[in-house]
Amino acid sequence: MELYFSSDDFSRELCDLIRIPSISAKKEHKEDAYRILETVTKIVEPMGFETRIVGTQGNPGFIATLDNEANEWLTIYNHLDVQPANEPQWKTNPFEPVEKEGAIIGRGATDDKGPALTIIHAIREMQRQNRSLPNIQLVYETEEEIGSPHFGPFLEEGLAEKWIRKPHSILVSDSEFEGEFPSITYKLKGNMRCLVSLETASMESHSGTTGGIAVNPLEVLCRALTQVKDGYGRFQLEGFYDNVTPPSPREKEALKLAAERMDVEQFKNDLGLMDLQTSDPKAMLNQSWNTPQMELHGFEGTQYLPGEIKTSIPNKVVAKVSFRLVPGQDPARIKKGFERYLQRYHPRITVKASGLPATMVSLDSPYMELARQASVTGFGSEPLFTASGGSIGAMALFQQAWKEVPMVLLSQSLLSDGYHAPNEHFTLDQAEKGMKTMGEYIRLIAEKK
Amino acid sequence: MELYFSSDDFSRELCDLIRIPSISAKKEHKEDAYRILETVTKIVEPMGFETRIVGTQGNPGFIATLDNEANEWLTIYNHLDVQPANEPQWKTNPFEPVEKEGAIIGRGATDDKGPALTIIHAIREMQRQNRSLPNIQLVYETEEEIGSPHFGPFLEEGLAEKWIRKPHSILVSDSEFEGEFPSITYKLKGNMRCLVSLETASMESHSGTTGGIAVNPLEVLCRALTQVKDGYGRFQLEGFYDNVTPPSPREKEALKLAAERMDVEQFKNDLGLMDLQTSDPKAMLNQSWNTPQMELHGFEGTQYLPGEIKTSIPNKVVAKVSFRLVPGQDPARIKKGFERYLQRYHPRITVKASGLPATMVSLDSPYMELARQASVTGFGSEPLFTASGGSIGAMALFQQAWKEVPMVLLSQSLLSDGYHAPNEHFTLDQAEKGMKTMGEYIRLIAEKK
Repeated sequence: MELYFSSDDFSRELCDLIRIPSISAKKEHKEDAYRILETVTKIVEPMGFETRIVGTQGNPGFIATLDNEANEWLTIYNHLDVQPANEPQWKTNPFEPVEKEGAIIGRGATDDKGPALTIIHAIREMQRQNRSLPNIQLVYETEEEIGSPHFGPFLEEGLAEKWIRKPHSILVSDSEFEGEFPSITYKLKGNMRCLVSLETASMESHSGTTGGIAVNPLEVLCRALTQVKDGYGRFQLEGFYDNVTPPSPREKEALKLAAERMDVEQFKNDLGLMDLQTSDPKAMLNQSWNTPQMELHGFEGTQYLPGEIKTSIPNKVVAKVSFRLVPGQDPARIKKGFERYLQRYHPRITVKASGLPATMVSLDSPYMELARQASVTGFGSEPLFTASGGSIGAMALFQQAWKEVPMVLLSQSLLSDGYHAPNEHFTLDQAEKGMKTMGEYIRLIAEKK
Repeated sequence: MELYFSSDDFSRELCDLIRIPSISAKKEHKEDAYRILETVTKIVEPMGFETRIVGTQGNPGFIATLDNEANEWLTIYNHLDVQPANEPQWKTNPFEPVEKEGAIIGRGATDDKGPALTIIHAIREMQRQNRSLPNIQLVYETEEEIGSPHFGPFLEEGLAEKWIRKPHSILVSDSEFEGEFPSITYKLKGNMRCLVSLETASMESHSGTTGGIAVNPLEVLCRALTQVKDGYGRFQLEGFYDNVTPPSPREKEALKLAAERMDVEQFKNDLGLMDLQTSDPKAMLNQSWNTPQMELHGFEGTQYLPGEIKTSIPNKVVAKVSFRLVPGQDPARIKKGFERYLQRYHPRITVKASGLPATMVSLDSPYMELARQASVTGFGSEPLFTASGGSIGAMALFQQAWKEVPMVLLSQSLLSDGYHAPNEHFTLDQAEKGMKTMGEYIRLIAEKK
């Protein structure tokens, strides 16, 4: 099956999508979430999809159904919201996309508007060629970048009211790979976001008057948060490692293979990293795939203006912390252990958290083999089976709702495309290969016995 | 000598001063620094002062000279700049002063516009009564709240061009006392402000991709900065305690007396503190008077927006830190030891610092005895001799220029007035007592043999 890729059409449609600043982290962009779903509606309705935009307590969800009277139902998940784009390193306006050196540059180009569009192009091209297709349901959301807080109720409602169908398999392409080796992701981390608060006074005070007497909540939080791990990097939180599923021999083999093919220098360059915690590829992948992580992102209630220092002691500080959890870890339980541990440093520290567990997909499902074949056809080389340090909230929710339905995560984006980074872009070459891979995968499902 | 205090005049003039938002931390308020000095010019010129506003590289300085053909020259130092006033707890507009329950509320009311004005009122009233006065030079600046970065060159220029006179003594009233016991401050800490930088990547990265692999500069800085002191609270910095002058027996006696009169509950209430590092008055005062302190104020380059978490790892972070130093400590040397210590945690950490050393005034100078007598007359009770955990940059510079010239720090403000805090105010009762104390002190100098 040879699919024709129209780079002009793709570029025009992707630019239309990027121009809508569908930033889920900012409430004032809720209208843009509706606008982008309306734009997608206009793209897929002429293809015969029945569409529905569904309001939630947050941003809307989207369902588009194409019943081809086939045996198989395929659900395709994507998100059309994006990260904020305030980084000073942007060379162009992130919401005024430009095409340069074969790439479309703009926020959301590669995460995840571009990959979402390649799949639509693959379906459209197969329709043009009168190819047989499975029954397809597109399930798009606009809150992935904030942890999919309303995707659970949306899914429940859709199942109850029967506008969401339980499929035979799910296809996702919100993941990345490095260099020439395409990847199929079999494991994703859970993501838990925490606001850690401590108030020690009703107002700021003059550090000359209260220095050494008042309790500085910023200092207490910095001390507590940097003591969550011991000197060997093990988390000190009660119950943290309970029920953690260790990697299977098959996973270890996959890691070894990926490590052999990993280019550490390219990884550093792609991400602009000056330092690495380790430069051994196996250790690096083990951190990312199999080890829970915690990161500190910033503080509310403290001074942040460039160059200025006011010599006052803050009175109420909120630390922004996130965890990436591995299979078996329960966010609610981790939150409890985290709060209890921090309270050793101050009994009034509280943690407000929201999050979803990790996702694990069977390496043995027949869909994995179809995805491998599709990758070879579309990208021209054998894919790696990889885990990811990242998270897709909806995957965890799909797994909760349909435990036995196989999921396939087929990457289209490159590490150097800049997920969540300034100058994010998606190359037309990668789009073409992605579109062909997706088309081939859909064809293999349609022809599945 | 009975001085008449016109609370109407005082209130009106103080409100005029507060209305000018002379915030030195914000460059856009440079014009306001000029405006406030012009306003003071209009107040003191009718009294016979010869005035001069002097531009500096930063905000202007002010000199007003009244030669009464007396034997003694008295320099009176004050500052007319204020702290920013962004605290959410303000009940009124900080730059639209209101009079309520006998107090003028607004930014700068007590620090230091009110106390600066009582002295002018004292001199004016003495002139009205044809009292003998010493020769007086007012030396006002508009950058005290940012550490007096241009006061040194201003002083040098004034001495070279002879519009600043070396006096017989210096009077300052930029300090506070608690409750019913007025205070004379004999020691001030040095203040050093530091921007501590670490860059570990050229851009932010997705914490799912780089968590556990990239180095989070915020975490490194939090860890390093909370390890500057050991478990007993001693600074680990090389040379930190070299040349530190321990408190003399006379100072220890003063601390004991002040501790006996200290109301810890009132201190907590005045400042809205929920916690104390220690509640023993002697230990509290020892922290404030005799122990160097370091405070963490915030970070640049990290997330600070309320409620939001973006799961990215920051790439360049600048910590805002300040030190309060005791006599004998040299800011340049401390900065070096600080930077070297932090570099154990990451070799690329750098420290940019500016600061001035502590100030120590002789308890034996005859002016101290005059100040004591004036306090008894004006405030109606014996003052305490106290040290302060705060800093006045100009004091260190006076001491560098005129080592042997005695300085007297006579407090007028109350701890509960809210230095650097929301709802800052100055009571008319305190203004009246302050004015009478200042008048009496000036009279005692004029009559000094």
